[in-house]
Amino acid sequence: MGRTSDAREKILSAAQTLIELRGYSALGVAEICKAAGVPKGSFYYFFDSKESLALAVIDEHWTGQRQAWGRILDSDEEPLRRLYLLFEATEAAQLAGQESCGTVSGCLFGNLTLEMSNHTEAIRARLQDIFDQQVEMVASVVGEALARGEVTVPDAQEAARAVVAQLEGQVLFAKLYNNTHRLGALWANCLALLGARPPRTAAAAV
Amino acid sequence: MGRTSDAREKILSAAQTLIELRGYSALGVAEICKAAGVPKGSFYYFFDSKESLALAVIDEHWTGQRQAWGRILDSDEEPLRRLYLLFEATEAAQLAGQESCGTVSGCLFGNLTLEMSNHTEAIRARLQDIFDQQVEMVASVVGEALARGEVTVPDAQEAARAVVAQLEGQVLFAKLYNNTHRLGALWANCLALLGARPPRTAAAAV
Repeated sequence: MGRTSDAREKILSAAQTLIELRGYSALGVAEICKAAGVPKGSFYYFFDSKESLALAVIDEHWTGQRQAWGRILDSDEEPLRRLYLLFEATEAAQLAGQESCGTVSGCLFGNLTLEMSNHTEAIRARLQDIFDQQVEMVASVVGEALARGEVTVPDAQEAARAVVAQLEGQVLFAKLYNNTHRLGALWANCLALLGARPPRTAAAAV
Repeated sequence: MGRTSDAREKILSAAQTLIELRGYSALGVAEICKAAGVPKGSFYYFFDSKESLALAVIDEHWTGQRQAWGRILDSDEEPLRRLYLLFEATEAAQLAGQESCGTVSGCLFGNLTLEMSNHTEAIRARLQDIFDQQVEMVASVVGEALARGEVTVPDAQEAARAVVAQLEGQVLFAKLYNNTHRLGALWANCLALLGARPPRTAAAAV
């Protein structure tokens, strides 16, 4: 199984890179296998279809991103500072992507949502689950800030959704302008959306 | 030219519907011509390539949307109420799309940005120009609200960009959840982003 496991990883890795560069619909299985350096037979040993590969790419990307978000959002830092660090990490990740492939590739989940969510139900459902988890993770931090009197929103869940929507919107602009500095606006916009007092925490974070 | 002009409109209309349903990359010229009910020769009479068709679809859609935005944002209503009416019109347009084709298709410009902007420069540049115009139109209204002391942002342009980013992010969620009610959050989030006092205008708008 050593070689075949390796082939699965190679296919996943090549597919993620190609999806980030060119979207999902434009890709063919043959092209993915060529980029991965594996024979086409290997593909169908691991994946029923291109759609099941896309689901595996989504799952693998979310496993990594959920861990990264968890390290930041479940840390011992003050709540608002954790959100600041999340935006900083997002900008750093987009910049690293731009440096490696020349263009800002944006958010894999946002990209696939706009490309596919209205015509591929399995992928839509998976992406919805991921965005629900993202909103939950942010809402938990907003709830802590609320309990400390640092923000003034009526509903932590709704506020968290506004923050994630702002994140997706600004990542869209970063991709469009091929400029990660766009993401620098996230922190001030997040404070505004949360009705945060200009807090000690904010000053410490900037 | 009567029949050929008609053919061009049919191709544009079919292409816009298909792009909204399934994205750009998944489409072929033959499929577009079949949906438009025109022979493939007509296509190449009007368009050099699928990319030049995509640019024409973008231009036509923006011509209509710019007029709609202009009617609302250049009206005699109070500035913040104009923004409220813009969100209301956005929700109504997405709902009409959902009722006609079963799913929320989202924002054509946002969809194409995430699908294509990092690998098709002509389309990226056109979309950047459109988003710049959208931000300008909103910034002009924010500037008026600022002059009236109704909002407290340091920079109307940056604030307008945050509002358009929020709009794109929430439209992404509306598409993902296939639920236009997500757009109901836009007004409160816009007021927060603009640091608006709970104004007369806001109460009147809701």
